[in-house]
Amino acid sequence: MKKTAAFIFAIIISLNCFSQEMQLFPTNWFTGFKNTKLQLIIHRQGVANDVPMYKLTPAGMKLADGITMKMVHRAENPNYLFLDLVIDKAAKPGVRNIKLGRLNFQYELKAKNTGNSKTRVQGINAKDFVYLLIPDRFANGDESNDIVKGYRDETSDRKNKFSRHGGDFKGVENHLDYFNTLGVTAIWMTPVIENNVTLMHEWGNNVAGYHGYWFTDHYQIDKRLGGNDGYLQLCDAAHKKGIKIIQDAVYNHVNKEHWSVLDPPMADWLNNWPSFTAPNHREETLFDPYSSAYDKKNMLDGWFTDHLPDLNQRNPFVANFLIQHALWTTETFGIDGWRVDTYKYADEPFLNNVNNALYAEFPAIMVFGEAWVNTVIGNAYFTKNNLNAPFSHNARGVIDFQSCFAILSAMNLAKGWNDGVSKIYMTLAQDLVYKDPMNNCIFMDNHDMDRVFSVVGEDWDKMKMGYNFLMTLRGIPQLYYGTEVLMKNLKTTTDAMVREDFPGGWKGDSANKFTDAGRTAAEKVSFDHISKLGQFRRSSSALTTGKTTQFVPKDGAYVYFRYDAKQTVMVVANTGEKAFKPDWNVYAERTNGFTKARDVVTGKEISLASIEVKPKDSFVFELVK
Amino acid sequence: MKKTAAFIFAIIISLNCFSQEMQLFPTNWFTGFKNTKLQLIIHRQGVANDVPMYKLTPAGMKLADGITMKMVHRAENPNYLFLDLVIDKAAKPGVRNIKLGRLNFQYELKAKNTGNSKTRVQGINAKDFVYLLIPDRFANGDESNDIVKGYRDETSDRKNKFSRHGGDFKGVENHLDYFNTLGVTAIWMTPVIENNVTLMHEWGNNVAGYHGYWFTDHYQIDKRLGGNDGYLQLCDAAHKKGIKIIQDAVYNHVNKEHWSVLDPPMADWLNNWPSFTAPNHREETLFDPYSSAYDKKNMLDGWFTDHLPDLNQRNPFVANFLIQHALWTTETFGIDGWRVDTYKYADEPFLNNVNNALYAEFPAIMVFGEAWVNTVIGNAYFTKNNLNAPFSHNARGVIDFQSCFAILSAMNLAKGWNDGVSKIYMTLAQDLVYKDPMNNCIFMDNHDMDRVFSVVGEDWDKMKMGYNFLMTLRGIPQLYYGTEVLMKNLKTTTDAMVREDFPGGWKGDSANKFTDAGRTAAEKVSFDHISKLGQFRRSSSALTTGKTTQFVPKDGAYVYFRYDAKQTVMVVANTGEKAFKPDWNVYAERTNGFTKARDVVTGKEISLASIEVKPKDSFVFELVK
Repeated sequence: MKKTAAFIFAIIISLNCFSQEMQLFPTNWFTGFKNTKLQLIIHRQGVANDVPMYKLTPAGMKLADGITMKMVHRAENPNYLFLDLVIDKAAKPGVRNIKLGRLNFQYELKAKNTGNSKTRVQGINAKDFVYLLIPDRFANGDESNDIVKGYRDETSDRKNKFSRHGGDFKGVENHLDYFNTLGVTAIWMTPVIENNVTLMHEWGNNVAGYHGYWFTDHYQIDKRLGGNDGYLQLCDAAHKKGIKIIQDAVYNHVNKEHWSVLDPPMADWLNNWPSFTAPNHREETLFDPYSSAYDKKNMLDGWFTDHLPDLNQRNPFVANFLIQHALWTTETFGIDGWRVDTYKYADEPFLNNVNNALYAEFPAIMVFGEAWVNTVIGNAYFTKNNLNAPFSHNARGVIDFQSCFAILSAMNLAKGWNDGVSKIYMTLAQDLVYKDPMNNCIFMDNHDMDRVFSVVGEDWDKMKMGYNFLMTLRGIPQLYYGTEVLMKNLKTTTDAMVREDFPGGWKGDSANKFTDAGRTAAEKVSFDHISKLGQFRRSSSALTTGKTTQFVPKDGAYVYFRYDAKQTVMVVANTGEKAFKPDWNVYAERTNGFTKARDVVTGKEISLASIEVKPKDSFVFELVK
Repeated sequence: MKKTAAFIFAIIISLNCFSQEMQLFPTNWFTGFKNTKLQLIIHRQGVANDVPMYKLTPAGMKLADGITMKMVHRAENPNYLFLDLVIDKAAKPGVRNIKLGRLNFQYELKAKNTGNSKTRVQGINAKDFVYLLIPDRFANGDESNDIVKGYRDETSDRKNKFSRHGGDFKGVENHLDYFNTLGVTAIWMTPVIENNVTLMHEWGNNVAGYHGYWFTDHYQIDKRLGGNDGYLQLCDAAHKKGIKIIQDAVYNHVNKEHWSVLDPPMADWLNNWPSFTAPNHREETLFDPYSSAYDKKNMLDGWFTDHLPDLNQRNPFVANFLIQHALWTTETFGIDGWRVDTYKYADEPFLNNVNNALYAEFPAIMVFGEAWVNTVIGNAYFTKNNLNAPFSHNARGVIDFQSCFAILSAMNLAKGWNDGVSKIYMTLAQDLVYKDPMNNCIFMDNHDMDRVFSVVGEDWDKMKMGYNFLMTLRGIPQLYYGTEVLMKNLKTTTDAMVREDFPGGWKGDSANKFTDAGRTAAEKVSFDHISKLGQFRRSSSALTTGKTTQFVPKDGAYVYFRYDAKQTVMVVANTGEKAFKPDWNVYAERTNGFTKARDVVTGKEISLASIEVKPKDSFVFELVK
C-alpha cells in the first residue's frame, strides 16, 4: 500500500478494538519516589459517567491509605478519567482497594528498590561497551512464545525477512557469557514494548513489528519476547553477570493500533493533520535562528509514517503518561540507560522534562538521544552542550552520528583535507561544543544503516582499522550484533536486509557463530580482534576515563593517544600509500619516558624505534617504559 | 628556487642593507588618544651606546613638552632602543626637539582627528557592499610612479603576470563614480604597505610583491601606489564620495627584507626554527580540546613561506610595534575597517589586544579576520561567538568562508540533502554560533580563489543566482574586482591567473569595461544585474538591517525572506529540474498581507499567484501589498 494513499485520518477517532476491561496506567506505582505526584489514567467505556464530579479542596481527598486525590480530570472522551494523586512520603507498599463513585478497583504501590543499587540503574558511561541487538533476530531461547495466541499477528516465519523470527529474551540470556567474552558490558535491545499490530502489507510482503518500534501498550513487554516477567528475568540475570541494560524508548509516536489511538482520550492527544503529513527530517528547524514556524511545526508534529501517529507531548496528559512510563520502567526492570528513538522529532521541553524526572529518581541513569544529523552543531544540540542556543537539551549523551560518519570516512576514503582519516581529526577537534563528549555513543553501524563490513567492501584491513578506532576513540563504543562475525549486507531494498538472524541463534542453524568452532577463519580473526580490544578496554583507565591527544594527520597517517597518569595507549592508522615510520620528536609530549609498545591485540612488544606501519595497517599499542 | 632549499636561517641575523639613518617607529604619534602610552622604537647603528643607562623614578623623566619617559629598554641588538613614553593628556600637537644622551631627534605629536568623524573611521557593517581589488591590477592613474628609483625592484611589466603592472591609488580614485554605480560602499584593497623586495625568481619567473602582502616597512605606503600622501588623498576622496576604506593588515609575518628581519632587535623578535618549518594550516589546533602542543606551536609559529618570517607577537615589543602601527594607520588615513590576513596563524591573545586597542580609540572600527577554515565552528571561532571555547576571539566580523562554499555549492551542484542549495540552508541554520552573523563578510571568490564565473562554467543563470544570494543573504557582501564584467580564470598554475588587470584601467587598453560601451552584451547583463542589486540593497532596510526567515529547500527550490516592519524581500532560487510554483500556504507567515512582487532587477511587478520559477532561475522580489 502507498503511504500517502493509505492514510486514513479516521483511524484516530475509531473506536474499534476497544477493550471493555478497565485499564489503569501506570499499572502500578511506587512508594519512596522523590516526586510524590502521580497522574493515574483510568480507561473503560463510559468511565467518566461512573464517577461523580468531585469538588476537591486544595488539601484533596483521601482515596486510599497513603494516597490523596487532588483533582479529577474528565477528558473529551468519556471513556477516560485522569486522577491527580499524591503518594504520601510515608505510604507503605501494598495493594489498595479503591472505590470511586460506581468504580471499584485495586491499585498497588510497590516499594522502590533501594537495596541492590549496585546492580540496578547503574548508568552507562565511557567504561561501557554496548552491544546493540534486535531481540527477535538474535537468538530463540524459548520456542513456546514464537507465536502468542490473541495477538493481532499470530505468525512467525524465518523465511520472510519482514516477519517475526522468534528470537527472545531467553535467547539473549543464554548468551550472557558470549557478551562477556567480547568485553561487552551493556546490551541495547531495539524496543521490547508490545507491538500488537496487524500484519501490514507493504512492498508485496507481510510486514510485522519485529523490530519493536510500533508500540501498542507501553506497560506490556511483548509476550513473544518473554513479556514483563521474562524481561525482568533477563535484566536481573544480565546485571548478575556484570552486563547492563539500555532500553529503547519512543516518545515521538505510537502505532496506529495503540489503545490511545484507537480510542483517543482527547482531540489533541495526537498532533493532527488534515491529511498525512511527513516531517521534513530537518533538525536545523529546531536551532536555526532563521527557521520558519511552518518548518518547525512540520518537523515536530509531522507523522514519521502514516501508521505512526505523532504524540502531542505539549499536552500535559500525554507528557505525564510518557514520563511516568519511563520512571515505571526504570524502576520495575532496573535498567541502566535509555536510548531515545527519533529524538529530534519530539517536543523539546518535554524531552528535558522526562530526562529531569529520570535524573531525579535515578541519579546514575544515562539518556542518549538518537539524532541522525548532518553537522557537529546539530549533534551537540541534542545533548548537554556549550552552544548557548535558545533551547538547551539536557540528555547526558547522544548517539554520535558525526563520529560514525568520520570513522566510515577514515576506513573507506582516501586521505584528504576534510575527508578520509582527516574527518576523524576534524570531528574530534570540534568536541568543544559538547559538555561531555565522553558520553557520546560512537559506532560504525546500527539497525538503520548498511552493515559496516559491506560498507568497507569486506576488506579486513579496513574493518580492523574501524575496530581500532571504535574501541579507542573518546566516548561509549557500540557494536551492532553480528558485526563481530562479519555479518554483512547493504539495505539496498529495505532495512530488513541488515537485520538478519544471528547464525546459531536458532536450533538447527547450519552454523553456530556463537562458538569458535562455528566461525570461519576470517570470522575468527574478526571475533578475536574485537574481543581482545573489548577485554583490554574493560580494564584500561586510559581508554575509559583518560584524556585524548590527537595529532594532525600527515600523508594519511593518523596518530592519537589516550592517557592518564597510569597508562598511555597509542593508536596509529595509516591510510596513506607509503609506510609510516613515526617521527618521535613529533609525539614526544606523549611518548617521552616510554621505550616500547605492546600490541594490545597480539600482545607482542616492540621498541618504539622499530614501529613502522604499512599502508592500510593500524595498531592499538599500550606504551611500556 | 625551491622553498625549503632556499631557506637561509642566517638572513635573520644579517646586517646587510642596514640604514645608517635613524628610524623612529611610530614615525609620529598623536595627542588626544585615550591610551596615553607609547613605546617608541629608535633604530640606528649602535644607538644603545649613545644613550646612558637612565635610572628612572616611577614618575619618570620629562623628555619633552608633554612627553614623559618611563623606561628605556636596551635590546640584545645595540642598534635599537625602546622608550616607554607617556603622552600627557594635555599635550599640545607639535614637533618636539628631543635630546637623549648623544642623540638629538625631532618627534611630532599630531592632533587626533576629531572634527570630521562622520566621514572618518565610520566602521563597516551590513549596510555596506565591499569591493575587493588589487591596486596594482585595477587601474593605472599615474604612470610616473610605475617605477620608483631606489626600490630593490625597479621593474614594471604588464606582460609578466608576476610583475608589477603600475596600478595605483590614482587609478582607484578615478573610478569612485564607478563604485557608486555598482552600489559599492567600501573598497578593500590588498595591502598598501611598502613591499620593497628584491624580485624573486620562482617558477621560471621574476616575481614581485605586486599583491602587497610582503611588508618591508609598515610606516611607508608603497610609493608605486602613491605613497603615504597618495593613500591619504584616496581615503579622503573616497570618503567624500560616500565610499569607505578597508585596509588589509598582516600581523602574522613580514617579508625577509623587512628592516626588523634584516637587523633583528632581539633574538625572539621572530619565531625561529632550526630549518624552514611551514605551518600545518590546521585551525583545529587552536580550539581542539585534544590538540597536541606540537601541532599548535607549529600552526602558530611556522613560517607561511620561507621568505615570510613569522613574527613573535608574544614578544611584547613586537606586539606594541604592531598595535601602535594599527592605531597610527587608522588615525592617519581615517580608514573604516581592517581585513586581517592569515588570522588563524597569529598569536591569539595578541589579536584580541590589537583589536581592543582599536576599539578603544575608534569605537566604530570593523575588524574581519581572514580564517580560511573548513567548518562553521572553525569560522565562528575567529570572531565573537557563542562557543564558550577556552579562548574567545573578539574580532567583530569574519571572512565567512563557510557561506562562500555554500553559495558555490548552491550555484554549481545538484540538489542534495547536504549539498547544492541545501548547503546554504544548513550553513545559515548554524548561525547560532555567531554573536552577530550580520558582521560576516560573505563572498563568491577573492584574490586567492578561482574566479567565480569560471567556477560556474561561464553559465549566466548560475552566476545570476550567485549574485542574488550574495546581495541578499545576511552579512556584508564582498565582490571581487572584475567579477561584475565576468572576468574569469582558474588559478590552475598560480594565484596570478585570477589577478589580471581590469580591462580599461590602462591607457591604450583595447577595451574599457569601466564603460557601458566597452562591455559585451553578456557583460552588460552581468554589470546591470549586480549594480541593480547594489543600488537596491543600498536603500533596503530589509537587506541591510532586517531579519531572515528561511524555509527548508524542497525539490531544489530554496526560498528565504529578509524583512522588517517596513519591507519584505523574497528570494527564490530553483536548482531543481522542474518549474517551481510556490505553495503560498507554506510561506504565509511572511507573505500574508502581500499580493504582488516587484522584481528588484527588472522592476516588473507581478501577482504572487502568478510566480513560477523555471529550473536554474532565481529572483529577488520586493513584496507589494
